[in-house]
Amino acid sequence: MTHRIAIIPGDGIGTEVMPEGVRALEAAARRFAIDLEYQTFEFGSCDYYVEHGQMLPDDWFERLKGFDALFYGAVGWPEKVPDHISLWGSLLQFRRRFDQYVNLRPCRLLPGIQSPLADRKPGDIDFYVVRENTEGEYSSVGGRMFEGTEREVVIQETVMTRHGVDRVLKFAYDLAQSRPRKTLTSATKSNGIAITMPWWDERVAAMGANYPEVSVDQFHIDILTAHFVMHPDWFDVVVASNLFGDILSDLGPACTGTIGVAPSANLNPDGTFPSLFEPVHGSAPDIAGRGIANPIGQIWSGAMLLEHLGYPEAGQAIVKAFEAVLAEGEVAVLTPDIGGTGTTESLGRAIAERI
Amino acid sequence: MTHRIAIIPGDGIGTEVMPEGVRALEAAARRFAIDLEYQTFEFGSCDYYVEHGQMLPDDWFERLKGFDALFYGAVGWPEKVPDHISLWGSLLQFRRRFDQYVNLRPCRLLPGIQSPLADRKPGDIDFYVVRENTEGEYSSVGGRMFEGTEREVVIQETVMTRHGVDRVLKFAYDLAQSRPRKTLTSATKSNGIAITMPWWDERVAAMGANYPEVSVDQFHIDILTAHFVMHPDWFDVVVASNLFGDILSDLGPACTGTIGVAPSANLNPDGTFPSLFEPVHGSAPDIAGRGIANPIGQIWSGAMLLEHLGYPEAGQAIVKAFEAVLAEGEVAVLTPDIGGTGTTESLGRAIAERI
Ligand SMILES: CC(C)[C@H](C(=O)O)[C@@H](O)C(=O)O
Ligand SMILES: CC(C)[C@H](C(=O)O)[C@@H](O)C(=O)O
Repeated sequence: MTHRIAIIPGDGIGTEVMPEGVRALEAAARRFAIDLEYQTFEFGSCDYYVEHGQMLPDDWFERLKGFDALFYGAVGWPEKVPDHISLWGSLLQFRRRFDQYVNLRPCRLLPGIQSPLADRKPGDIDFYVVRENTEGEYSSVGGRMFEGTEREVVIQETVMTRHGVDRVLKFAYDLAQSRPRKTLTSATKSNGIAITMPWWDERVAAMGANYPEVSVDQFHIDILTAHFVMHPDWFDVVVASNLFGDILSDLGPACTGTIGVAPSANLNPDGTFPSLFEPVHGSAPDIAGRGIANPIGQIWSGAMLLEHLGYPEAGQAIVKAFEAVLAEGEVAVLTPDIGGTGTTESLGRAIAERI
Repeated sequence: MTHRIAIIPGDGIGTEVMPEGVRALEAAARRFAIDLEYQTFEFGSCDYYVEHGQMLPDDWFERLKGFDALFYGAVGWPEKVPDHISLWGSLLQFRRRFDQYVNLRPCRLLPGIQSPLADRKPGDIDFYVVRENTEGEYSSVGGRMFEGTEREVVIQETVMTRHGVDRVLKFAYDLAQSRPRKTLTSATKSNGIAITMPWWDERVAAMGANYPEVSVDQFHIDILTAHFVMHPDWFDVVVASNLFGDILSDLGPACTGTIGVAPSANLNPDGTFPSLFEPVHGSAPDIAGRGIANPIGQIWSGAMLLEHLGYPEAGQAIVKAFEAVLAEGEVAVLTPDIGGTGTTESLGRAIAERI
């Protein structure tokens, strides 16, 4: 059985880490006799926009929907295209149109990586952020009135639906249920955002009735970010709206030392459409072109891709491989963000060899 | 000239830290010959709600508007009143009706307080969060449709106005201009929240034209929270919308070791209405009633109150006093959150004696 993977390198360091992501996939595919087939696409990048005036071709949906998974690098290059145009024209389209309603982001302190937090060691931080990925604060409803005048008013609506919220909560509860600690934390802000968030809290409680074994707590997003820094060991599975999940899944990895290693899976759990795998980091214009970006976010995303396709051992082999390389800590191999003098390629090759 | 201060202890530890806040005010008033007069109000607390069915009496506005400042403890007690009712019925009313459009929150690593971040010392972290405090994501517009059914949709509108945004930006630019580093950071999320936030970015840029000496940068809120942890030394003045400012002003203090010491000033810079001073922390039901809450957030808020009334030396004397007590680090005096075995009162008294 052949699995077809669409490769979309995107912008900036996306194009630099992607080859290492593919190298790792290839190594795992060889070892576990998995048949992967790739097709690379130029669209979904700001260079494509500069040439074509849009981020994606008109028929992108038809061209991508038959793939078994999408492997994305990073997108965004504000000097070429404003961020809201490049992102709403690509990544956010994929998430919505392919109904990737769960954004799953592991957050783990890895061996050999220095946490900015004092006295934290591998094992102390190990949780998942489960982010709603299709609605909520990321809405396309709203606009400007009295534009350009002193009376200007700008409105954007947060839109939450029972359909959208319940399914991501179910995913989060299932995940918590499957883990030893069976603990779910809900990110809320029902004291201030007093229309949508109290309702979110109600849905969390309602879904909880089906999961008597899962213990649930909730924190307002402000103090929750504080607890990420002060008590990252408290968390097991954290479920959050689109915006809150976005924030927590950058902050969490920062607490583990670098967002350069953090992966993410944009999942369509129903399997109707392809899921999308991408590092949490962006295109990083500041370091792009120098070949020093950390490829582990991309590689780890590849591991999640293989798990999603039904090859958990292959995914695990990739994770074990980069953990081993990190634990060894060979300075000439590691990238600068984690204390090395190596390159994207040196780190990518070392990991692929381990697989 | 007599200054009239309304004291509203509120809930939980609010009632415990308030006497220490007043003790510090009194000490400074004696030393600097400032004439302060107090009146204490029971409303604005959940106990008041339980008795009266509302958080505030009908004539609260008339009764409070003539004061020179409001000194608030903390509000909220979810077991008695749901948070969105207690907060929208009190604090958020004050902020709106008294047009306290700037929420100013200093964030400083103090001597004697252990930061959860590795290798950070006093001086390394020293910035202000300037938060928009009357509109934005904290809106009262929206509602539920198809309530209680599978089709349920819940909408809440973020409302930003040029009037509201420009005035808080002006305050932030003025503050940045007055500081040695003259650096302003704007919290945005224009890549995802693609209607309101690109417009926010435009207003930041437009206002910047009046401040050629201020250097401005901007980060999306997700990576900005990461930078707070990884590079808190980068920041000087951070300006943010109501929600983003709420998050950053809990996260920032957490990076400095405890939110128990963080103060906030809800300012009506025009002086039309009284400004409100309160600690950043909440009512903390988990430790309430034990007399161990850290009173420094309340005391420091009192210092900001005196500065606002036109007594910067008196405010500074309070700050110097708690810095000195912290630097001494006498375990029997300090509260447990900062490594002591003392009480709210022992720490409050030690500070007042220093003043
Ligand atoms: C209690 C709550 C409504 C409030 C807010 O979100 O503004 C608090 O968190 C704060 O920061 O003052
Ligand atoms: C690039 C941006 C639109 C995106 C988001 O906010 O979802 C990114 O930050 C992420 O977390 O995947």
